[in-house]
Amino acid sequence: MSYKLKQLAELLDLTVQGDENVVINSVASVESAQQGDICFVSNAKYMHALRETNASAVIIKQDMLENTHVAALVVDNPRATYARIVDLLYPQQLPVAGIHPTASIHASAKVSDSASIGANVVVDANAEIADEAVIEAGCVIGRNSQIGKSTHLYPNVTVYYGCSIGEQCILHSSSVVGSDGFGFEFDKTEWLKISQVGGVRIGNKVEIGACSVVDRGALNDTVIEEGVKLDNHVQIAHNVHVGAHTVMSRGVGVAGSTKIGKNCIIGGMAGIRDNIEITDNVMITAMTIVSKSLKKPGSYSSTTPIDETKSWRKNSVRFRQLDSMAKRIRQLEKQINNKG
Amino acid sequence: MSYKLKQLAELLDLTVQGDENVVINSVASVESAQQGDICFVSNAKYMHALRETNASAVIIKQDMLENTHVAALVVDNPRATYARIVDLLYPQQLPVAGIHPTASIHASAKVSDSASIGANVVVDANAEIADEAVIEAGCVIGRNSQIGKSTHLYPNVTVYYGCSIGEQCILHSSSVVGSDGFGFEFDKTEWLKISQVGGVRIGNKVEIGACSVVDRGALNDTVIEEGVKLDNHVQIAHNVHVGAHTVMSRGVGVAGSTKIGKNCIIGGMAGIRDNIEITDNVMITAMTIVSKSLKKPGSYSSTTPIDETKSWRKNSVRFRQLDSMAKRIRQLEKQINNKG
Amino acid sequence: MSYKLKQLAELLDLTVQGDENVVINSVASVESAQQGDICFVSNAKYMHALRETNASAVIIKQDMLENTHVAALVVDNPRATYARIVDLLYPQQLPVAGIHPTASIHASAKVSDSASIGANVVVDANAEIADEAVIEAGCVIGRNSQIGKSTHLYPNVTVYYGCSIGEQCILHSSSVVGSDGFGFEFDKTEWLKISQVGGVRIGNKVEIGACSVVDRGALNDTVIEEGVKLDNHVQIAHNVHVGAHTVMSRGVGVAGSTKIGKNCIIGGMAGIRDNIEITDNVMITAMTIVSKSLKKPGSYSSTTPIDETKSWRKNSVRFRQLDSMAKRIRQLEKQINNKG
Repeated sequence: MSYKLKQLAELLDLTVQGDENVVINSVASVESAQQGDICFVSNAKYMHALRETNASAVIIKQDMLENTHVAALVVDNPRATYARIVDLLYPQQLPVAGIHPTASIHASAKVSDSASIGANVVVDANAEIADEAVIEAGCVIGRNSQIGKSTHLYPNVTVYYGCSIGEQCILHSSSVVGSDGFGFEFDKTEWLKISQVGGVRIGNKVEIGACSVVDRGALNDTVIEEGVKLDNHVQIAHNVHVGAHTVMSRGVGVAGSTKIGKNCIIGGMAGIRDNIEITDNVMITAMTIVSKSLKKPGSYSSTTPIDETKSWRKNSVRFRQLDSMAKRIRQLEKQINNKG
Repeated sequence: MSYKLKQLAELLDLTVQGDENVVINSVASVESAQQGDICFVSNAKYMHALRETNASAVIIKQDMLENTHVAALVVDNPRATYARIVDLLYPQQLPVAGIHPTASIHASAKVSDSASIGANVVVDANAEIADEAVIEAGCVIGRNSQIGKSTHLYPNVTVYYGCSIGEQCILHSSSVVGSDGFGFEFDKTEWLKISQVGGVRIGNKVEIGACSVVDRGALNDTVIEEGVKLDNHVQIAHNVHVGAHTVMSRGVGVAGSTKIGKNCIIGGMAGIRDNIEITDNVMITAMTIVSKSLKKPGSYSSTTPIDETKSWRKNSVRFRQLDSMAKRIRQLEKQINNKG
Repeated sequence: MSYKLKQLAELLDLTVQGDENVVINSVASVESAQQGDICFVSNAKYMHALRETNASAVIIKQDMLENTHVAALVVDNPRATYARIVDLLYPQQLPVAGIHPTASIHASAKVSDSASIGANVVVDANAEIADEAVIEAGCVIGRNSQIGKSTHLYPNVTVYYGCSIGEQCILHSSSVVGSDGFGFEFDKTEWLKISQVGGVRIGNKVEIGACSVVDRGALNDTVIEEGVKLDNHVQIAHNVHVGAHTVMSRGVGVAGSTKIGKNCIIGGMAGIRDNIEITDNVMITAMTIVSKSLKKPGSYSSTTPIDETKSWRKNSVRFRQLDSMAKRIRQLEKQINNKG
């Protein structure tokens, strides 16, 4: 796609500084941009690059304007405007509406005429697919499950029975919604399965990454509120509640019945134990183990620093002496003070 | 479903205390239960809730009986009885027997008449699907593989060739059985693949979570004994042997040729190295790295505690000074003792 | 398959020591080998087993030759020769060329006559499947994507649009190539999605494990160079660049825009942060967190040692006192020195 800068400004209700007739047909980074590109700068460390850019236009804050010679869109959040311009320049190619002849749609299922159902999709009894939803090839939607308006399932997603997914959600390939929570009771000689009879409720504008899993609840539902973004390989266990607009990076695991607040940011491969509560606005750094409730907003961590293996080995063995070291320091302090 | 309490007692061979004619149609927690609900209490901390419950009946141990005014099933393991009652009140809706017209069944495959084969399922040459097995939509069963009686594969499970899965197993969506073990040899300039010609043998009553993977053996089989329960995102590498009734929580990784005993409980996201042996009855806490054999039953751990990032940063940098700190303590002790 | 030892030697251009007419029909370990088996020994610790082996032949280095009484292939890298002999004795059974009648191939897609397209495979517009590629059941290949010569996709793999995969690659089941990178910008009240308009480029001879994910780039492509081997559950985020012949064990996560060198070996469940650079020939031990660039080849680690939970608990709580302990040691040293 190709726009004059003034057209982009009109579409996004922005004002232009400089030549509003430059033609924009792609985005690029400030360093690599060439004629026809628009780039964004939101950080003073790119000021030098900004002065030298070959871009046809830039997206910047007011206070950076004096550093550029090219046409500019002046905004409060350059990266957000950039995101919207990407969508204009690279419009998504959505599959056409209609049901592929190889799809298997149960007679009792309700599929909107404006939805797109790909090859080999299976929609089971009483399931509902709303307007403009896109269900790509190989997806399976269980009985009594609902897929909201404009929600997009990439190929080979599985949604079990009795789950509801909101509007404008995105589920990536191989992700699974509604698999059994991990509940067993040891009974004499073996583990007895505790059937998981709850469901999953997912709000609007939720994104779920490839190979991520949201288990169904044991009795009540597992709940993911609106605007939550989950990266790939994330696990949401049974009866977890994830507050609105919380983000989890790749590989995070949240164990059963834990409640996570709104607007949290959970770093990659962090593990969050069961039956705890994390308040709103908590940040967890990558690979941290969250072993207790966090009642105060803020940032939390638990890892140890990377080192050359040779040095690490020497230090790491001392970890098992920490309690003894602490006691020996206490003892030394006593001895010194007695003498002093 | 709806039962009188005495019917539940008869079906499970239990005795009733109190009104055996109360009608039960659902389960709930002791706090939230209302008329028609049955709940269970196995822990004295719920004694107060038990006294105030609105449930129509409770499942309790003998020694809790004096604390309730409602009808009761008196049992040794309330949670196990609860699990069985869930199954009675919420019977699973299994697909009907028969082969969906869109399934592709090889002429040499043997599929029981009582098995249920979903849409787009592929069963390759000489594969066998036993009685009452349920293979849901999009599953692929490789040649010479066997699926045991009453085993249930949820949609989009892949079983490679030459793998055998026992009876009454459950495999969740996107899980994979029989993918190649990770075996390579660096040969001059590149990694040479070592073909993995073993298979996978899985015992009865095994559950495998969504997006979990069990690799095939290099030469001999990878083995999972009966009653093992694997949560989501678990990895069992080539030639691992998992003993009966061992449980692994979400995200555990077991590396090649490691042998794990019976009745172990492995916490979420623990990593277990290759070529070691873990004896029976070992418990590993979440996110622990198991870097050596564990020959003694018991509980093992390796993580560091979560803290506010600001404090954590101060302590964490000291990790690289641990060896030096230990030596300085030793030096101080010498100095003090020399003086003393 | 069955070969005389001299036939194997001819096929691999090797020389035989001893009886070149022994018949070999399988491989086994040096300890378990019986008549008809060939085994390999590359390590002096198996010398005793080598002397007592019942194998019909062994693959060994020159300097081990005096320790065996059986026929031998004498080579520089016994394990590499072993790998080649496995391929001869256990030839892979590849599906026949041709397109399964249930596959959905877009009219504009180009599929080689020598490729094998399994049941329910979907190949979208303008996609290309090269000679001798094998696309097993349930795979989905997006529009404008390319699958190279002799590349093998096991069942239920998803390749999004605009991705290219080289020759002789192997992708295991439930793996995903081309899912959206995890890019969002918080805009007033919610996360705005930054559309990911780059693609994925994968070189020749790359292997990608089951349930692994390679995200597409934000603007430019995510790149995996030739000969890279990724185990199961690995994550390659948007705009990561993985150098040739680098190996990642199970569960490794590489965050966005990080550049990893050639010939690196990354241990299982290691986490590598975003926007850093790791040079060639770096080894990372399992479960290490790589939180900064590594500019020097060598081995790096960050974990803490496993211990019995009871002892671990005592030591672990001291981690939060490390900074205080270090300061107290410093204080003690001052006091001692002042006195001394």
